[in-house]
Amino acid sequence: MKLIESVPNFSEGRRKEVVEKIVAEAKKYDRVWVLDWSMDADHNRSVITLVGEPENLINALFDMTKKAAELIDLRNHTGQHPRMGAADVIPLVPLYNTTMEECVEYSKILGRRIGEELGIPVYLYEKSATRPERQNLADIRRGEFEGFFEKIKDPLWKPDFGPDRVHPTAGVTAVGAREFLIAFNVNLGTRDVKIAEKIARAIRFSSGGLRYVKAIGVDLKGKGVVQVSINITDHKRTPLYRVFELIKMEAERYGVPVLGSDIVGLFPLESLLKTVSYYLRTDLNAKKVIESSLLEILVRESEK
Amino acid sequence: MKLIESVPNFSEGRRKEVVEKIVAEAKKYDRVWVLDWSMDADHNRSVITLVGEPENLINALFDMTKKAAELIDLRNHTGQHPRMGAADVIPLVPLYNTTMEECVEYSKILGRRIGEELGIPVYLYEKSATRPERQNLADIRRGEFEGFFEKIKDPLWKPDFGPDRVHPTAGVTAVGAREFLIAFNVNLGTRDVKIAEKIARAIRFSSGGLRYVKAIGVDLKGKGVVQVSINITDHKRTPLYRVFELIKMEAERYGVPVLGSDIVGLFPLESLLKTVSYYLRTDLNAKKVIESSLLEILVRESEK
Repeated sequence: MKLIESVPNFSEGRRKEVVEKIVAEAKKYDRVWVLDWSMDADHNRSVITLVGEPENLINALFDMTKKAAELIDLRNHTGQHPRMGAADVIPLVPLYNTTMEECVEYSKILGRRIGEELGIPVYLYEKSATRPERQNLADIRRGEFEGFFEKIKDPLWKPDFGPDRVHPTAGVTAVGAREFLIAFNVNLGTRDVKIAEKIARAIRFSSGGLRYVKAIGVDLKGKGVVQVSINITDHKRTPLYRVFELIKMEAERYGVPVLGSDIVGLFPLESLLKTVSYYLRTDLNAKKVIESSLLEILVRESEK
Repeated sequence: MKLIESVPNFSEGRRKEVVEKIVAEAKKYDRVWVLDWSMDADHNRSVITLVGEPENLINALFDMTKKAAELIDLRNHTGQHPRMGAADVIPLVPLYNTTMEECVEYSKILGRRIGEELGIPVYLYEKSATRPERQNLADIRRGEFEGFFEKIKDPLWKPDFGPDRVHPTAGVTAVGAREFLIAFNVNLGTRDVKIAEKIARAIRFSSGGLRYVKAIGVDLKGKGVVQVSINITDHKRTPLYRVFELIKMEAERYGVPVLGSDIVGLFPLESLLKTVSYYLRTDLNAKKVIESSLLEILVRESEK
């Protein structure tokens, strides 16, 4: 069993029937499961969480993109969130028995199909990026749909796949492989947000900390505590426990207790296995977890 | 989704075709999955690991018991492992969204059917036991198949279900609800097995330690290390991390390092969640684990 996760973002957060039609495209496929989907009217954007076996997932994502291009017209789209395409961004995340390299390969297969069959320019981003200035999604998206009609003429922004002109209604799409992102908050027993900020600086990559950590200090007004709010962009290389222990170490310096932590949203089993393996001084893998063994059987059985 | 685990033991470890026929009875059912099965010729015994939704699982276990009673004749059975029935013991373990109380109820439903429909005397054991001397399986099984023809006449050993006489070929069966048992070994950086024995004594219930811990000190000959070998009989009430931290604490007293640990065999996701929640000072549950969410969907889908 090989599983990839994808969290495609579509530029429709108001017309529920449109989002449902896009979701329905994924549900047509065996061994592709929609774990969650949500829409935001202010952002005018929807986010769908899918897990599936690689080839079927890629086909599902292609069909979802095709449907989005049919039903969404960027010329009439307004919303708070920056966007450049009907299918705005499609990340592929290695979840189970799949490498980042495989996800990069699949992102190229998907990108090529979107470019060639739908006539939508595609940019490969993150781990799939073909040049450094395309790693960061925000850099690609700068100028948004409206700005892309000029931007695409710049040889620096020639698309990786598809035509050299913006699709008139569906814009352009970013596709890329990346690691699962874990949002992790740690509460400190102090009202002094400066201490949370100092700890955030100590642990984050941008100011000398851990490679795959972004962090800020946040004041939880009225709760009498402050928080270090963290994104771990590669939890395999910068695991949860190392971030937590480093925060504890730095907090001790200020005599501030670490009250607790919270992982926001869903997280992969592997992040738990790495954490338990560290603290119990062992080396656990998913095959030993009953629920994983069962999942493996069910995925095999799921060929309809 | 509610899931129960069962690990029934059958008194056949040599004739593969017999065990396969017993396993096949489980595979007939929707939402019952055979995770693993193994047979041991010396013990002349097989162990099957099943997970399933409660009602289907109970029906599968009944059919397996019926098949075992048809194919196994205890009068001709020899093996190193003590045994009293063709289906020797059937534990029910709450795995997912199921309480111990529910498992006790299901064990009674299963026990009644085995007793009444198959004419096999049934003893409820562990959490299902109807009197204290029946909690421990070894106490029930004492005397084995051959001894039960006398033992059953003692009013103390009147069966919970079924006739007051031993089934002539299929013997008697124990059915009961119990917690998942975790086998956990911790290696110490010393050659002195006395230190492992002292730590085992310090942590185990029988000599004043943690309620659900059994432990012994073991010499891993030739490896230059010794081991504290542990059974945790209720990991929800005596969680893994507490056992491990107590061993670390006691080992420190002797200046002996804890080199590592190992969990033997499969273990439930919940044991990981409890451990991570302790160390990261949080409170995680299975619904936030991607693989669990997917499992939930697949179990729902699995209605054939």
